[in-house]
Amino acid sequence: MKRRLRQIAELVNARLLGDGDVEIAGVASIASATAGDLVFVEDEKYLSQALQSGAGAVIAAVAVGTSGKPLLICGHPKLAFARAAQMLRSDRSFRTDEGVHSTALVHSSARLDEFVIVEEYAVIGADVEIGAGTRIGAGCVVGRGVKIGQDCLIYPRVTIYAGTAVGERVTVQAGAVLGSDGFGYVRDPEDGHYEKFPQVGRLVIEDDVEIGANSTIDRGALDETRIGRGTKIDNLVHIGHNCRIGENVIIAAQTGLSGSIVIENDVVLGGQVGIGEHAHIEEGVMLGAQCGVLPNKILRGKGIAFWGTPAQPLREYLKQLARLARLGKKKR
Amino acid sequence: MKRRLRQIAELVNARLLGDGDVEIAGVASIASATAGDLVFVEDEKYLSQALQSGAGAVIAAVAVGTSGKPLLICGHPKLAFARAAQMLRSDRSFRTDEGVHSTALVHSSARLDEFVIVEEYAVIGADVEIGAGTRIGAGCVVGRGVKIGQDCLIYPRVTIYAGTAVGERVTVQAGAVLGSDGFGYVRDPEDGHYEKFPQVGRLVIEDDVEIGANSTIDRGALDETRIGRGTKIDNLVHIGHNCRIGENVIIAAQTGLSGSIVIENDVVLGGQVGIGEHAHIEEGVMLGAQCGVLPNKILRGKGIAFWGTPAQPLREYLKQLARLARLGKKKR
Amino acid sequence: MKRRLRQIAELVNARLLGDGDVEIAGVASIASATAGDLVFVEDEKYLSQALQSGAGAVIAAVAVGTSGKPLLICGHPKLAFARAAQMLRSDRSFRTDEGVHSTALVHSSARLDEFVIVEEYAVIGADVEIGAGTRIGAGCVVGRGVKIGQDCLIYPRVTIYAGTAVGERVTVQAGAVLGSDGFGYVRDPEDGHYEKFPQVGRLVIEDDVEIGANSTIDRGALDETRIGRGTKIDNLVHIGHNCRIGENVIIAAQTGLSGSIVIENDVVLGGQVGIGEHAHIEEGVMLGAQCGVLPNKILRGKGIAFWGTPAQPLREYLKQLARLARLGKKKR
Repeated sequence: MKRRLRQIAELVNARLLGDGDVEIAGVASIASATAGDLVFVEDEKYLSQALQSGAGAVIAAVAVGTSGKPLLICGHPKLAFARAAQMLRSDRSFRTDEGVHSTALVHSSARLDEFVIVEEYAVIGADVEIGAGTRIGAGCVVGRGVKIGQDCLIYPRVTIYAGTAVGERVTVQAGAVLGSDGFGYVRDPEDGHYEKFPQVGRLVIEDDVEIGANSTIDRGALDETRIGRGTKIDNLVHIGHNCRIGENVIIAAQTGLSGSIVIENDVVLGGQVGIGEHAHIEEGVMLGAQCGVLPNKILRGKGIAFWGTPAQPLREYLKQLARLARLGKKKR
Repeated sequence: MKRRLRQIAELVNARLLGDGDVEIAGVASIASATAGDLVFVEDEKYLSQALQSGAGAVIAAVAVGTSGKPLLICGHPKLAFARAAQMLRSDRSFRTDEGVHSTALVHSSARLDEFVIVEEYAVIGADVEIGAGTRIGAGCVVGRGVKIGQDCLIYPRVTIYAGTAVGERVTVQAGAVLGSDGFGYVRDPEDGHYEKFPQVGRLVIEDDVEIGANSTIDRGALDETRIGRGTKIDNLVHIGHNCRIGENVIIAAQTGLSGSIVIENDVVLGGQVGIGEHAHIEEGVMLGAQCGVLPNKILRGKGIAFWGTPAQPLREYLKQLARLARLGKKKR
Repeated sequence: MKRRLRQIAELVNARLLGDGDVEIAGVASIASATAGDLVFVEDEKYLSQALQSGAGAVIAAVAVGTSGKPLLICGHPKLAFARAAQMLRSDRSFRTDEGVHSTALVHSSARLDEFVIVEEYAVIGADVEIGAGTRIGAGCVVGRGVKIGQDCLIYPRVTIYAGTAVGERVTVQAGAVLGSDGFGYVRDPEDGHYEKFPQVGRLVIEDDVEIGANSTIDRGALDETRIGRGTKIDNLVHIGHNCRIGENVIIAAQTGLSGSIVIENDVVLGGQVGIGEHAHIEEGVMLGAQCGVLPNKILRGKGIAFWGTPAQPLREYLKQLARLARLGKKKR
């Protein structure tokens, strides 16, 4: 469904310059935009390009004297653009009467709210609860006793193990595995075999979390693993048993957390980071890509970046790199 | 099914102090335990906490003078706890008459033992053999000619390529891929294209192996890839073609082995380790997290830890880190 | 179907010595070969072993005086072997009348060429087009509007998101996810939450690409992600939104590319490499395993190898390692 530019201006709290009746159907890049598209400009130097593009309207931070195109002026054009996109997308609401596909197998004891969509060949176990507006993709397997809140979007072929709790507005990309057994064994000194330590806890995913394709998050061993509200997790990330991840944490692709790690709110983890068990990353810390944190380590400092293995403050790390380079240039 | 504490004491070979008639239904952490739960204490300092918890009984290494709770005393409380958990879990035996779900597609030439469970929408190919007590999860795809032994637990959405052999009591977490084509190509000097080298060998998984969620293990190119008895593999691990992994090897999450690597018995690989082709890791070696081993390298030494890239003995690595740090503190 | 050795000699452009009527059914290693198998020898020192093996014929670079076995002599034995294997395999042509399995769900608006095979429980969305000779494995989910060319082999449980374009002769191993949402968010300065940046572009996979098991490739945010012709991608690789990968690129297992990276033709990336956003790897560069490339970095030099984090020319890297080692041996 299209929206008038005027409506979008109101939603994103922008000043409208020009024709508010223009109809906007989607968002696009400047290079690919056509008449129904909205584009945005963060850097003023691209503004004339945007104005000459095929776009129907432009979001920008500052207006220019004369423009044939309607403009939305606001402080954070990229944020406004993202919100507008969300608004236009949500017109494709899941709250339709599409319902449960005839090949989806929903256990008789499961309770699905109205407007739940279950796609082809999905399997919903006993005692599952799913909130209104949630879509379960084709081929998903949702184990016994799983609770999923409202307006979630679970892409195809996701596995959710028994007992996992998922909040509202959670998005899970295809192939992710939620609530698998953690990696815990006790070695038998007699014969050297590894006995499996019980992995009978659960996994809790709070509201507004997004989880990337083929990522894996283990359930707690005896207690729980928890992913805090608003946290975003990229593809192929591993989170071990008993981890407690705070709110609005960013975890880039292929990062791995072993067991019992605490990540506080607003932490940012780059890609391919590895963190040892029982480490504690305090609020607002940033870990650079491929960085390694030793077990039991505590890292602190809002906005402080760490890098390298073992991780050290970025400033120290850069000094060390410089020393290493200098070392080679000296006569010794 | 519940067990009397007396029965558990016998199984785990512990000395029973107190009421052996207490009924135990499961295991728990000290914080979450209720009356039907068994808990354990490794470190004596948590014993009073355990005794004051809601648990029905405590496994510990030493007894205390007076306690309202029954105790199981033994040399390795954590191991005894793991065994007890296993015992209580196995009461949920797969050897039921749950059988093959009506939507599972089992090829007419496949031979399934009695007490095999095949869940919803699983696909079992021609000439497959599956042993008694094995469960194949929902949405699994088991290729032509695969052999799976007794009492295996294959979680949902696992793919097992044609010809793979799986032993007894093997557990495979959701989304794992067993027996995929290895990564082998021959470059054509004429036009620079890569011709696929045949990947027609097979994969053999021995008894008591566990494989983590979304891990991938390639078949041999011409011969076989083999995972030895009792080896435990975490999530998102990659094992390339022709690797030969020994017995009771531990491979933590996101570790990657390229082709034709030999890992001997009792090796421990930390998370995100990378090993180059044709490397040979001898018995009992330990590789620290994120460590990198060059192609063709041989690492030896029972109980010797290696770290860094290229991997070196931990002692050397730590010295080097110390030197590097010192370097910065000198006037130069 | 078996082939006469004479036919194979013609195909791979080799000189036939001995009986051209020998029937060849497959390829094997020297150790496992039986009478119907073809083997190859790259290194002359294994030639006598090959001649004494059970194989029906041997491909080699040089002939020997007397041999009871027929030989194929050519300049690149391994390449010829790979081609012969391909030829013998293609006898198991997908161009059969196996067709669409009765449990596969194909949307009425999808257009499947003749000789398309769709296996059990696969789901094919609206407006999908699939070319002749392509096989879609069991449990695959192919989203709305996906185009797949001729003679592709999509293994079981692959997810292809809506709008993705796949060329001809593309192979995708099990569990891969193609076209998932990229990892892009805009932080709201007011309340600190992350707003999802639109991920509405698409993914284009060109001809002759191979993608490994459980790898993930994100769609473009607004424009496209593109994987060039002949590129080979191993297992558990992550490729972020807006990346443009050239032709005949090799990407080994567990390597991760964040967003908007350009990789030119003939680049080789080792395993567990990590590349930061907007980096540009020019034609023919080689990156060693576990190497890390900083965002926005440009690496150039045909045939030049880079290693370490941050990546530097291999020669520099090795010097640095040597210095570091020397440092420890000095009295300081």
